[in-house]
Amino acid sequence: MNTAIILAGGVGSRMGLDCPKQFLMVQDKPIISYCFDIFQQHAEIDKLVVVVSDQWKEFVEEQAAKNGISKICGYAPAGETRQHSIYNGLKCIAANCPDTDIVIVHDAARPLVSDKIISDCIRGATEFDGAMPVISVKDTVYQSKDGKTIDKLLTRSELFAGQAPESFKYKRYFEIHNEVTDEEIGATAGSSEIAYRHGMEIRMVQGSERNLKITTIEDLETFESILKGVN
Amino acid sequence: MNTAIILAGGVGSRMGLDCPKQFLMVQDKPIISYCFDIFQQHAEIDKLVVVVSDQWKEFVEEQAAKNGISKICGYAPAGETRQHSIYNGLKCIAANCPDTDIVIVHDAARPLVSDKIISDCIRGATEFDGAMPVISVKDTVYQSKDGKTIDKLLTRSELFAGQAPESFKYKRYFEIHNEVTDEEIGATAGSSEIAYRHGMEIRMVQGSERNLKITTIEDLETFESILKGVN
Repeated sequence: MNTAIILAGGVGSRMGLDCPKQFLMVQDKPIISYCFDIFQQHAEIDKLVVVVSDQWKEFVEEQAAKNGISKICGYAPAGETRQHSIYNGLKCIAANCPDTDIVIVHDAARPLVSDKIISDCIRGATEFDGAMPVISVKDTVYQSKDGKTIDKLLTRSELFAGQAPESFKYKRYFEIHNEVTDEEIGATAGSSEIAYRHGMEIRMVQGSERNLKITTIEDLETFESILKGVN
Repeated sequence: MNTAIILAGGVGSRMGLDCPKQFLMVQDKPIISYCFDIFQQHAEIDKLVVVVSDQWKEFVEEQAAKNGISKICGYAPAGETRQHSIYNGLKCIAANCPDTDIVIVHDAARPLVSDKIISDCIRGATEFDGAMPVISVKDTVYQSKDGKTIDKLLTRSELFAGQAPESFKYKRYFEIHNEVTDEEIGATAGSSEIAYRHGMEIRMVQGSERNLKITTIEDLETFESILKGVN
């Protein structure tokens, strides 16, 4: 069984708006609903767990009901960091759909993920221990400990930017979270990072520029123009 | 004396347009002219050298004349790679303004660079051997030699994306280009990279998200909306 965790706990402070970005209305629908639609209609996704802060839970339940999202099997509270939220989602799976083989972790603020990326991630986590979509890094990237002097040059062709969804063999991924310290969970920058660090073999699959995470007003405008082009 | 090299040799193939991106008209002015204006009015910039392919040279000369750009002291032909173009610009400085102390290398397709970034770069190259504006990397970046399996995790807080303009002590930077092989010049991903590799001390200064390089249609739309907001 494949269960997706939809992360909707963010507060959207980067955009300076009162409303978290994943709940902004775009063409009469909040961004999270575009995400729900994709996972609801995807044949390989069995269940959904939604991570959301208490004050937005009712709103999300209403939207899910309105749009016929029937796969949701549980809600988990938002954590202090993204990885804490994922851990809460993993616990919710243990309680509500413990037969889960593969967990797929997605951001509610990435409403343009393709069916193919989701399928590729599930296949990667089946054949290996996990998978994540990546895109090449366009910038020249320099490494610096103090942010003033260059410590190291990095080879651009060897650098990949991680996107979501990331997918993992559920049992092992959950175990890692139960074994490590709270500090380690808090210091995790990407959800594949903690898996890789603890010996899981993570396969990279082809992501897409289009699968953007909405974090700025410009991203929101891009999403709106893509929707207009599609409809 | 501080001389800026304006790189306008690109062919814009990434946007799939006939016209190279730096020559696209935005509000009745090609993008390169926005760049020219900034460097023309900047008190610390003495001379400009423009790197441009033969077929666009006349167009650039006309635009410069029309907009009163009086600091241009020479034109250099576009090279096979960005770094080859820079080398052509450095040779043009040797021929036309050999008293140059600091060279500032900028992309014609970055029309939103601020006066402050230019000044900070000049100060960095004066106090150290060179300077470049950087911004933090927002993505989680993974290192992989084959693009399939992760070889290494990188600490996001230690990663910086290089922007332009990059500035250098002219004499030493030019010498390096005369000393190295053509292959090394061709394999250079960022203009600070070759300087750093040959022992120049490059200081990072604060860049800006706004100082974007126009490479996609979305970037062009962003530039247009920023202009509309400003005017």
